Amino acid sequence: MIETNPADALARTCAAAMLERDRMAQSLGITIEEAREGYARVAMTVTPTMINGHDTVHGGVTFTLADTAFAFACNSRNEANVALQASISFTKAGRTGDRLIATAQERFGGKGRTGHYDVDVANQAGEPIAMFRGVCYRISKPVLVDP
Amino acid sequence: MIETNPADALARTCAAAMLERDRMAQSLGITIEEAREGYARVAMTVTPTMINGHDTVHGGVTFTLADTAFAFACNSRNEANVALQASISFTKAGRTGDRLIATAQERFGGKGRTGHYDVDVANQAGEPIAMFRGVCYRISKPVLVDP
Amino acid sequence: MIETNPADALARTCAAAMLERDRMAQSLGITIEEAREGYARVAMTVTPTMINGHDTVHGGVTFTLADTAFAFACNSRNEANVALQASISFTKAGRTGDRLIATAQERFGGKGRTGHYDVDVANQAGEPIAMFRGVCYRISKPVLVDP
Amino acid sequence: MIETNPADALARTCAAAMLERDRMAQSLGITIEEAREGYARVAMTVTPTMINGHDTVHGGVTFTLADTAFAFACNSRNEANVALQASISFTKAGRTGDRLIATAQERFGGKGRTGHYDVDVANQAGEPIAMFRGVCYRISKPVLVDP
Repeated sequence: MIETNPADALARTCAAAMLERDRMAQSLGITIEEAREGYARVAMTVTPTMINGHDTVHGGVTFTLADTAFAFACNSRNEANVALQASISFTKAGRTGDRLIATAQERFGGKGRTGHYDVDVANQAGEPIAMFRGVCYRISKPVLVDP
Repeated sequence: MIETNPADALARTCAAAMLERDRMAQSLGITIEEAREGYARVAMTVTPTMINGHDTVHGGVTFTLADTAFAFACNSRNEANVALQASISFTKAGRTGDRLIATAQERFGGKGRTGHYDVDVANQAGEPIAMFRGVCYRISKPVLVDP
Repeated sequence: MIETNPADALARTCAAAMLERDRMAQSLGITIEEAREGYARVAMTVTPTMINGHDTVHGGVTFTLADTAFAFACNSRNEANVALQASISFTKAGRTGDRLIATAQERFGGKGRTGHYDVDVANQAGEPIAMFRGVCYRISKPVLVDP
Repeated sequence: MIETNPADALARTCAAAMLERDRMAQSLGITIEEAREGYARVAMTVTPTMINGHDTVHGGVTFTLADTAFAFACNSRNEANVALQASISFTKAGRTGDRLIATAQERFGGKGRTGHYDVDVANQAGEPIAMFRGVCYRISKPVLVDP
């Protein structure tokens, strides 16, 4: 594929660099499916070590997947952003073996230092697992060390 | 210590049973510091595998710790509750080696099938790392298989 | 227009009945633009009495508009639902004279007693003013006294 | 009472100035009970025009009361702050004639441009009606025109 949009190419480079440093995302086996400006889609397969006391996916694992997509999307312009606040609604319990996909999309940004992102998490059947919404704050440093 | 309050003794039994099944909490090294009716305090030491792309504790790890305390507190009456929704505000970045303590306290419950809990997360110096607030929903089964 | 879908016709009847009793929505001049099953769109014009100490629309007014759309959407099946929790993100300041439109859409529901709704609020130019997300809980009574 | 703390005296002046411009808070009859640095307590009596379609206090009214306390608390240092995001949990339905008191307390602030506040709303019997949590962002202008 020929990447024609420089902003999307930068987003892919930033997401890859973020994941390379993100030990937690790596330990959960999170992979990047797509990255564009203000957008990221990541995925993960639920293993037996991701389960909580009710024998379903730990809410913290679902949150971590969504938060990772959020981080990649809000750092896509090579300007470092950190999370200020996030909310998550749990709609369906995930199970061992499920393939979870988190899709992050910028809803509002570009003015001031803050941005608003939505992240939907679904399983392999497209059923909604969780809905995440986050607020980020831009700090004054780049994502890439050598951009 | 002689446990004089039966409700608190039940809470301790439920929290221990929850943690025994909670593979994710175990894999993060989460331990129970205290459990009482509608209350739980859990702790964890930040390791290098809990770090995100900004070299600070992954927001998902902090959330998982808080969510675990929430789960133990809202399941303390041997009535299974699941999380409907949670919000988290991040106030300070945690670092490798930090000892994080999450304290969950019931704010409202006892009527209907829903409950509201606050969980504060602090580091070893008592500095606030995050504030979590969750809503749970009681399902009709016990926490303990053989209570 | 010939209403062919009975569920949408019921939704319209329920929304109209809710608004007739909703003194607060009336006092803000909120009107129903459209109501369907699990969906409602309401609108309001910002007057000088809806302004806060920064000379912009009071966040409480924007919330009230969104919450009203949420209420109409989650009561659209003639089963009374009450709000458990709601979150709102403010993206742009509204001004006196603005026409604000709140669009509520069910995101998840139908199982159990709880539902999740998104409400987007925009101004007359289509610019996003706020994003609202709510969790509701079904109580055991109808919306309509004489359905 | 002799006001000995200049920061608290400034907070009182700022809250009074905010309320004087806040047409929405005035129209609900909101009054200031106490204002200090990073803190505000406001109150309001529920009238028949504040009722929703379920014959209880409109969630938007409760939110407006809490949001007003939040605004007074986060503007208490004569530095204008605007709300980025807020969450509210509803614990008990308010009724006509209830006296509602909202108490806002800074939970974290002072570094960067953002702050985190909790606002608890209770009725005249001290029963919790709602719990609010807000994130604010400091803009570069004073609250007082002539400080």
